[in-house]
Amino acid sequence: MPETHGRRRAALRHSLTDAGLDALLVTDLLNIRYLTGFTGSNAAVLVHAGGDARTLFCTDGRYTTQSAAEVPDLDKVVDRASAAALVKRAAKDAAAYGRIGFESQHVSVEEYEDLREHVELTRTPGLVERLRLVKDEAEIDALRQACAAADRALGDLVAAGGLRPGRTELEVARDLENRMLEHGSSEPSFASIVAAGAHSAIPHHRPTHAELKRGDFVKLDFGATVDGYHSDMTRTFVLGEPADWQREVYELVRTAQAAGVGAVAPGAEVSDVDAAARSVIAAAGRGDAFAHGLGHGVGLQIHEAPSLAATGVGTLSAGMAVTVEPGVYLAGRGGVRIEDTLVVRAGEPELLTLSTKNLVAV
Amino acid sequence: MPETHGRRRAALRHSLTDAGLDALLVTDLLNIRYLTGFTGSNAAVLVHAGGDARTLFCTDGRYTTQSAAEVPDLDKVVDRASAAALVKRAAKDAAAYGRIGFESQHVSVEEYEDLREHVELTRTPGLVERLRLVKDEAEIDALRQACAAADRALGDLVAAGGLRPGRTELEVARDLENRMLEHGSSEPSFASIVAAGAHSAIPHHRPTHAELKRGDFVKLDFGATVDGYHSDMTRTFVLGEPADWQREVYELVRTAQAAGVGAVAPGAEVSDVDAAARSVIAAAGRGDAFAHGLGHGVGLQIHEAPSLAATGVGTLSAGMAVTVEPGVYLAGRGGVRIEDTLVVRAGEPELLTLSTKNLVAV
Repeated sequence: MPETHGRRRAALRHSLTDAGLDALLVTDLLNIRYLTGFTGSNAAVLVHAGGDARTLFCTDGRYTTQSAAEVPDLDKVVDRASAAALVKRAAKDAAAYGRIGFESQHVSVEEYEDLREHVELTRTPGLVERLRLVKDEAEIDALRQACAAADRALGDLVAAGGLRPGRTELEVARDLENRMLEHGSSEPSFASIVAAGAHSAIPHHRPTHAELKRGDFVKLDFGATVDGYHSDMTRTFVLGEPADWQREVYELVRTAQAAGVGAVAPGAEVSDVDAAARSVIAAAGRGDAFAHGLGHGVGLQIHEAPSLAATGVGTLSAGMAVTVEPGVYLAGRGGVRIEDTLVVRAGEPELLTLSTKNLVAV
Repeated sequence: MPETHGRRRAALRHSLTDAGLDALLVTDLLNIRYLTGFTGSNAAVLVHAGGDARTLFCTDGRYTTQSAAEVPDLDKVVDRASAAALVKRAAKDAAAYGRIGFESQHVSVEEYEDLREHVELTRTPGLVERLRLVKDEAEIDALRQACAAADRALGDLVAAGGLRPGRTELEVARDLENRMLEHGSSEPSFASIVAAGAHSAIPHHRPTHAELKRGDFVKLDFGATVDGYHSDMTRTFVLGEPADWQREVYELVRTAQAAGVGAVAPGAEVSDVDAAARSVIAAAGRGDAFAHGLGHGVGLQIHEAPSLAATGVGTLSAGMAVTVEPGVYLAGRGGVRIEDTLVVRAGEPELLTLSTKNLVAV
């Protein structure tokens, strides 16, 4: 999709002009993937405010073939020291590259000391990340496919009786991850959380050899990756007939989650979205049992801006992709989290994770 | 193993004294794991040259329980901004913390600008990495377990007929990774390479839906992770009866690999070890078909110092863990790589990957 990447670079050029820069040295590999489509492990791009004709892409000899295929539309420099090679080029043409920004939140002090020997650089953190906040349709399509792979994997797991007493958390995690691969995921988006019984009260429990038992809550938090984009979904099941306390906690979280989703709209303050869900849980006297933020942005990173939290600052815009994931955790007993990935749209948000949020007894 | 971590911090204190530092701000999570045993995702440590009594560990509230268990022997500060919290403490006691080094190869320019508002910091890259070059017995034990998990997984895969015509590279990769998990690996050390037929001529091929065919070379490069330590092993098989050219290439690589292993000894120049293997391949007129370095250090990172390459500088020491992995790649036909992970010892190196290096026809 060279046009897509070209459009993103054009948008970045507006940011460069606004910031008074002639060019930006992009060294973060995710930002490079976003701007060019390159998926290798070594690259740098010098994006010129004047256009693609002056923009340079550098990678090393291992990626000659790959970069020709993935980045057909930019001039290439081949050098293992990719960032240094580009600033050396810029140093030779000071008229065109008077003021160069760099990704100071990604470049280490040692790397910077090396680069500044060749050319003066201006700290300009977050320029590409700011563009990445609002997803274009190519990105939303990848997110949709990643969410679909996770939905299908979960459906298959439940249909195959994969959630049953006697299986271990680790076995369930591996089963779920294999099923995501079968449905087109290149790799899990993060280390899957499978938490049974009292473990479900630990928000970020890592799966163990503990066996699932009748009467347990089983909390699954997992994601698929498609074209580098991540899905993120949590569902909580009960093994066998739910007890009254389990129904109560589940319905509380479900109501809070729906309230959070309902508050997601262009222009909404992120702290208000958090409050919409949190107030439901607080009103039920369970406020202390929900000790994390409501959600986060998701895209090329599993956690990215914006943060939907009480301490978050800023508003949502159409095209942002976020999670909404309240939880109630009762130490020693069990916990419930319900999480969707969705896209902010004018009117209703677009839900990308579609697995049922009804209480399912397996 | 608090004694182990205490010993490592004591060794680091010698480096601090040699460098004229009162303390070192450690922010790299692998270095923190090495020095303290902490495995969480947010921490900083201020190691004082005077001893553990003045050394501070900081993490956030999510890790209160975990850090108490993993790091019982250091005073704790609880703060989400872990590095900033420690430099603020240091700023209040300028007499004790006159000269503080920091890991300038890991700290970004933005992070540094934030930290230096509180205290002056000295660039001291690589102090902990230099200690990590030589593994202690606890580390070698973890490496040994990781290598054993990979050996067992490969043995099971071959015994179960997992390498057979009609399976895809992706299926074999997933099968192998699942078997490593069964043998105690927490996760693959890196994205497994399964390369069949002409794909085996691509040094770092990513597995595809291509099917294994009779007559193919099948190259497997994979690793297990135990306690954060990685194994790295490559074996190349033939599906069915090997052709003469396959036997010739295989035996050449095997001879070169044995020559490389034979050159691994304390005091050996890393470039000489590379040359020991490379000269065998060059003498057979295949020098151009071996276009990568001979090996690399392995530990908490899958690739770490030292680099065993023609351009490498330095000598080996007893206790270093390295790979030896020559290859011969014939574009369009196929390639062979044979790789072991081993420990430099006085006399013979200790081989950690024990799977046979005989040519196996499956």
